[in-house]
Amino acid sequence: MTWSPANPESVFTYGAPQLKFGPGAADEVGHDLLALGARRVLLVTDAGVLATGWPDRVAEGIRGFGIEVVVHDSAHVEPTDASLDAAVERARSDGPFDGFVAVGGGSAIDTAKAVDLLLSDGGDLMDYVNVPVGAGRAPTRRLAPLVAVPTTTGTGAESTTICVLDVLSLKVKTGISHVRLRPSLAVVDPRLTASQPAGVTASAGMDILCHALESWTARPYSSYERKQPGERVPYCGRNPISDMWSERSMSLLAKAFRAAVRDGSDEAARGDMALAATFAGLGFGNAGVHVPHANAYPIAGRVRGFHPDGYPRDEPMVPHGMAVALTAPEAFRWTFESDPERHLAAARLLDPAHGDRWDSDPRDVLPGVLADLMRDIGMPNGLAAVGYDEHDVADLVDGSLKQQRLLATSPREVGPDDLSGILARSMHLWD
Amino acid sequence: MTWSPANPESVFTYGAPQLKFGPGAADEVGHDLLALGARRVLLVTDAGVLATGWPDRVAEGIRGFGIEVVVHDSAHVEPTDASLDAAVERARSDGPFDGFVAVGGGSAIDTAKAVDLLLSDGGDLMDYVNVPVGAGRAPTRRLAPLVAVPTTTGTGAESTTICVLDVLSLKVKTGISHVRLRPSLAVVDPRLTASQPAGVTASAGMDILCHALESWTARPYSSYERKQPGERVPYCGRNPISDMWSERSMSLLAKAFRAAVRDGSDEAARGDMALAATFAGLGFGNAGVHVPHANAYPIAGRVRGFHPDGYPRDEPMVPHGMAVALTAPEAFRWTFESDPERHLAAARLLDPAHGDRWDSDPRDVLPGVLADLMRDIGMPNGLAAVGYDEHDVADLVDGSLKQQRLLATSPREVGPDDLSGILARSMHLWD
Repeated sequence: MTWSPANPESVFTYGAPQLKFGPGAADEVGHDLLALGARRVLLVTDAGVLATGWPDRVAEGIRGFGIEVVVHDSAHVEPTDASLDAAVERARSDGPFDGFVAVGGGSAIDTAKAVDLLLSDGGDLMDYVNVPVGAGRAPTRRLAPLVAVPTTTGTGAESTTICVLDVLSLKVKTGISHVRLRPSLAVVDPRLTASQPAGVTASAGMDILCHALESWTARPYSSYERKQPGERVPYCGRNPISDMWSERSMSLLAKAFRAAVRDGSDEAARGDMALAATFAGLGFGNAGVHVPHANAYPIAGRVRGFHPDGYPRDEPMVPHGMAVALTAPEAFRWTFESDPERHLAAARLLDPAHGDRWDSDPRDVLPGVLADLMRDIGMPNGLAAVGYDEHDVADLVDGSLKQQRLLATSPREVGPDDLSGILARSMHLWD
Repeated sequence: MTWSPANPESVFTYGAPQLKFGPGAADEVGHDLLALGARRVLLVTDAGVLATGWPDRVAEGIRGFGIEVVVHDSAHVEPTDASLDAAVERARSDGPFDGFVAVGGGSAIDTAKAVDLLLSDGGDLMDYVNVPVGAGRAPTRRLAPLVAVPTTTGTGAESTTICVLDVLSLKVKTGISHVRLRPSLAVVDPRLTASQPAGVTASAGMDILCHALESWTARPYSSYERKQPGERVPYCGRNPISDMWSERSMSLLAKAFRAAVRDGSDEAARGDMALAATFAGLGFGNAGVHVPHANAYPIAGRVRGFHPDGYPRDEPMVPHGMAVALTAPEAFRWTFESDPERHLAAARLLDPAHGDRWDSDPRDVLPGVLADLMRDIGMPNGLAAVGYDEHDVADLVDGSLKQQRLLATSPREVGPDDLSGILARSMHLWD
């Protein structure tokens, strides 16, 4: 595949929050808030995370630095316009605040971004939601500092500039996107993930892995036509900086992923997984993800009866990382021809012992490495194992095609027939 | 060398500005300033850089986005308290500004930091200068956004939290240090370095190389006693993130350094050097530098009659990168025993063709790689070649010992006798 832009892009961008990493880091948030100028802060979490005790422990630590803290378990897992409106209303009635802290996964962090935005800049949620759903208004004031303390090793929410939400009345997933939404500081403390069940570690880890691998194989930034400054997007295609983070993350996953799933008390493996997740957040996410992530939206959204281990049993669900992983082997078989050497290099990084098996077609090497890993860590054996069959393919393709923002970084032009083939071949991944 | 902390540090930190990199990036600064909320900005540069035409070109580009721009060539090369006071006074009389842009080397960028600080937070320069020289006051307000556009490939000023200055009446080099001094955005456009003379490329490149190599060999963060949050410093010892940037930077230097010095119009080499310098700024500088940088202060400060090619002839000088390089081979021979494998790995990264020569003592390998490179790019052959002799060693040792902030990240405990030996053996580096 050769892209031939008439006027090739020469510029790439890189954005990330400041970082404090390591066991104990979550005990120091108060110090960091003081340095950021905060004296009265709102800590946003969700009910499930609140029950672990960590949000209250972080809040106590902050109070030890003389800062007033209010704790709201106002984040809804998968935020909606209704949940965000409620969180904002609750925050307004307890405000004002000059700083925000999020303790939780992507849902808590994204809720805190929306609360910070609306309390700092005023107005209503839909003023800021991306067009055409909302008015796409850019904030005119600087937001108060936000410190993100992730409790799951997979989210990149601590470093992105986006708040993802479902607009219930329209049944559409959209977002608010602005550079000012990026948290000021990410505090990654591996202790907060120690109670994560094996199933969650496996799914979240596949999300990290696919962030790295999709960024590593993404369309190069220099293969696009030159953008006007206002056209630049946070995901600019692979570039020398995203490549560096992707490579290092794949090496960490090769070392630690199976061990962290097998034994959640393996501190070294937990630390390496937290570092790999941080690298996802800080680094390679600037390139962009493509086909597996695009497919993940309808795979998660159209679930009927699947209940994965390690997650709440009340609603059927395909966790995000699992939904991403299920079509990854076939997606990377399809992208192989865009850059064979890069796909083989990824296989070697992810599986140094077996990643250069040449007993088969080279395009089978990376899918083989992925399928071996997924089987070992207990991922379902393809889309059939989470309840889909060939009659669902057309619907899933429709859903994937709605993710044009993601498909734009695919290393091959991708149409409905390509997606249909990838999805159909993903029903069963191994014998 | 084994460090045995009773309560080992478990936390490391990482900070960096946002980045826009590539030819053409400097034409878009106005767009970035709008996104940061600025409408009337001060562009700070120095007279030498102003003469290249780039500051006016950047200012014109910013005006194209409807932003008012005032240009001050108020930066003094090596800022002093007097030069910063003058720059602040001039800025106050032309203000107010809601954003700042620096176009130049470390001097222009550091001057812009001081101007931003004093215009945003009020007071006098000495209120903020580090104790004991100044009052060490922390800013209570957030600074206006600062966009740094470096014009030399060696400075890390675009990403540090420090403004370095000479206090003339006390004849002391000190600084202002606070996390809020870090620029919001670094815009690295390799076109702005295209006119850099070969001698400047060589010295600045040695500064990059030593940033990478000193960070790579620095004392590990986990070898220190656990710090209280208020004791944390921006340079926390080597860690997984600084290692990654250091490795990648050394690989880029191996590929591009000699070519960029030999032919300044080699665009690929210029681009790789700009990227290596950016990696210095974004990444490995978070670990810290040690003996070569500590020695560089007195080597530059006590110069008598040396006039390097490519620099202004009006005053004698040893450029910073050259001053750093002159004791690097002997410093790394002395640090070898702290981690032999790491020193040998650095030699291989910096010189893949010859970095694993084993015809001599392993501790000679890295010094040999450095001396070969320095000879090839026209560095002086040791301290004698810039005017020092054995009678100067005691004075130079005194000067190095004043840099305890830097020596704290040395991988071996370093005393006067160690420095004396390193300096004495650095008089002549090759035959």
